[in-house]
Amino acid sequence: MDSRRAESFSDGVFAVAITVLIFNLLTIGRDHLDYRVLGDAWPQYVAYVVSFMTIGIMWINHHTMFGHVRLIDRPLLVLNLLLLMGIVAIPFPTALVAEHLTGPTKSGGAAAAVLYGAVMIAISIFYNLIWAYLVRHADQLGSRITRVRLQDSVPGLGRSPLLARIPRWSVGLLGYLAGALLAAFVSAGAALGVYAALAVFYLFNHLPEPSAMASALPEAKEDVESI
Amino acid sequence: MDSRRAESFSDGVFAVAITVLIFNLLTIGRDHLDYRVLGDAWPQYVAYVVSFMTIGIMWINHHTMFGHVRLIDRPLLVLNLLLLMGIVAIPFPTALVAEHLTGPTKSGGAAAAVLYGAVMIAISIFYNLIWAYLVRHADQLGSRITRVRLQDSVPGLGRSPLLARIPRWSVGLLGYLAGALLAAFVSAGAALGVYAALAVFYLFNHLPEPSAMASALPEAKEDVESI
Amino acid sequence: MDSRRAESFSDGVFAVAITVLIFNLLTIGRDHLDYRVLGDAWPQYVAYVVSFMTIGIMWINHHTMFGHVRLIDRPLLVLNLLLLMGIVAIPFPTALVAEHLTGPTKSGGAAAAVLYGAVMIAISIFYNLIWAYLVRHADQLGSRITRVRLQDSVPGLGRSPLLARIPRWSVGLLGYLAGALLAAFVSAGAALGVYAALAVFYLFNHLPEPSAMASALPEAKEDVESI
Amino acid sequence: MDSRRAESFSDGVFAVAITVLIFNLLTIGRDHLDYRVLGDAWPQYVAYVVSFMTIGIMWINHHTMFGHVRLIDRPLLVLNLLLLMGIVAIPFPTALVAEHLTGPTKSGGAAAAVLYGAVMIAISIFYNLIWAYLVRHADQLGSRITRVRLQDSVPGLGRSPLLARIPRWSVGLLGYLAGALLAAFVSAGAALGVYAALAVFYLFNHLPEPSAMASALPEAKEDVESI
Repeated sequence: MDSRRAESFSDGVFAVAITVLIFNLLTIGRDHLDYRVLGDAWPQYVAYVVSFMTIGIMWINHHTMFGHVRLIDRPLLVLNLLLLMGIVAIPFPTALVAEHLTGPTKSGGAAAAVLYGAVMIAISIFYNLIWAYLVRHADQLGSRITRVRLQDSVPGLGRSPLLARIPRWSVGLLGYLAGALLAAFVSAGAALGVYAALAVFYLFNHLPEPSAMASALPEAKEDVESI
Repeated sequence: MDSRRAESFSDGVFAVAITVLIFNLLTIGRDHLDYRVLGDAWPQYVAYVVSFMTIGIMWINHHTMFGHVRLIDRPLLVLNLLLLMGIVAIPFPTALVAEHLTGPTKSGGAAAAVLYGAVMIAISIFYNLIWAYLVRHADQLGSRITRVRLQDSVPGLGRSPLLARIPRWSVGLLGYLAGALLAAFVSAGAALGVYAALAVFYLFNHLPEPSAMASALPEAKEDVESI
Repeated sequence: MDSRRAESFSDGVFAVAITVLIFNLLTIGRDHLDYRVLGDAWPQYVAYVVSFMTIGIMWINHHTMFGHVRLIDRPLLVLNLLLLMGIVAIPFPTALVAEHLTGPTKSGGAAAAVLYGAVMIAISIFYNLIWAYLVRHADQLGSRITRVRLQDSVPGLGRSPLLARIPRWSVGLLGYLAGALLAAFVSAGAALGVYAALAVFYLFNHLPEPSAMASALPEAKEDVESI
Repeated sequence: MDSRRAESFSDGVFAVAITVLIFNLLTIGRDHLDYRVLGDAWPQYVAYVVSFMTIGIMWINHHTMFGHVRLIDRPLLVLNLLLLMGIVAIPFPTALVAEHLTGPTKSGGAAAAVLYGAVMIAISIFYNLIWAYLVRHADQLGSRITRVRLQDSVPGLGRSPLLARIPRWSVGLLGYLAGALLAAFVSAGAALGVYAALAVFYLFNHLPEPSAMASALPEAKEDVESI
């Protein structure tokens, strides 16, 4: 199947999921409204902003990933569905975190922040599986560059040979794991700080850019010719 | 009308319907939240996963079907609308199954599981009608292969002449019928097992692949030339 | 602006509006569920089916209209927004009709059916304004056929010279007006019958088909050449 | 990244956000319905119409802006996400204004109208930032005309040298600021009048039209050749 079809369906799901976040705000101030009611709802606004930017940035990275291939097969479609199932779930823990972060019981905030982390961990796992599948089947999915070149171009954690082998992209998974553990055993607020920091981390690209790879293609051909 | 228009509208409807499923979860833990509240809501998560994958796989199969034609006429548009009417309805029985499966009365779970089956049966009927219409009008809908070849390429239930005539695709309809009967007279839980098994069954393709047919086209031409 | 942009935005709005209809069903059987509860909700199902098919058929006719032009200007964009404002409103009277048709007071059903008719009248007016604008500006909107030919090709009510001048398309407006009057002074149920009949009426096309006009183009050229 | 991708995602978000507005109406007349109940809800209808047209017109202007470029980079994607975060938020203050404008306390209406203005100010700021970024990076974003020409073609407030330098487009930001101040210190109703007037103001285009610029291109080339 042409990958553009799956991308436009995914765009639609991302667009609806990101808009569902507003429903969490629609209960504020319905019965009684003044400036204090609006002010007291600040955790709702923070949760809206963090989750909106998180879903938005995930959409950008989704496009960067699928920009490398032109075709999509059934296993990849199913992996993509599993990823979207995680994206669509985000408004659920977002609502709970906003509701219980400043609530009377400490256990409510902790459970909400752990759930938020669990959803993010699931999403990270599916992103990693999709990228691994894309690279491994790059040739048959109509990638414009070879599998080996694609694999070599993934930015690593650092310049030393050891760190270079660990893809920077995958660090998010560990970050969300650390956040969930923080939420469970230390503090829900600290966990949310970690989640916000990870949203900022993914603002920057940690994958090879499809366009940059394409412009590097002639050079690649020269490499082959010079052998 | 160009079939791409109808497909992109259908993509939008599938994308919104699949996202509506999350609204069923948005009532969990609003008043009080701890790990037990999250754990007790497990039927909600199972229902979310099964229905999300079901709608997602139906979207994949929708594309496989319409990938065979380039045009779409008014009868096909109306059949497609009726199909979408079933897809959009899925969140309704999903919510009821999740709510009443572990509920105090047995009748609630049974009614919910019967309704789930009824919606699926309606969807199956419309898929079968659309496929029959597509094959019968393949030539005038701009199919890249002839009607006879399209009809012959539908995978059957088995290799024996009798089983080969029954399209594997249509078995789902009987499966959902069996599930609904199980729900009504035996057990709602067993019916849900059948529905989940059918989602896995449709994960695999039981229709001729448009791209596979296209690459088989030159061969077909040779057949004609050799006559 | 390229008309495809406005069409794909309109497709999105139609797709979301048609899916919003399911929210009216999501309150059925949440507290208590058995077969009788499901059966008693039949006005909800009828309302869902009628409004779903109505929005779906309106989407088909929207495409038929905009299929005649390739460009779209600001006045047309604003008319299209006003039309979409009516389409998006449909779930509101739909919910009220389903809720109050079998309710204890007669006034509730009447008010709901009048509101349903009022929304449909507004939509009909905007469809007529859009079509009038499209025909009048056919040439500058990049229509493939001349303004005069487009105007002549609108199917009329009958063959007699008088009836041929009244476009069949516009009859819907009078139908919805009659339905609203019926609802206000006679019976809400009768009005709903009129609305359902009008949905069936618009199932058939009462506008010139863009593709039919395109294939008629060479003939038109011959007409010119033979003069 | 190709700018069409970001535009089609934005189209989806606009389409869902504009449809979410109907949810504010879905609570009217559920328990009891007659003509008076429908009539008393007039602030809900006014709020629906004003916000629907506001989002719709913002969508038109979004397309006019992005029609000037063919590519989109990460900073622009993030600015666009921030803009969409404001668009999606509109149903929230819309609901509050409709609920509290005719409410018993004056403070409720004021707080709602101030919030409405605040969301509009945020949106205006992001529109201005996006336009400034687009012009400054016109060449590398694949604009069909040079940065200098694009900057010169922005319509000003008037013909005098001083007024010509102030872009007409940016006046909206000041208008929404004035509206929010009016709401806070004078009257919520007067503020809503200002907001409605600004929606009408943006109905007309205050940006250079991409198509007009394109047709002006040959002329521009002649200018260069004649030097």
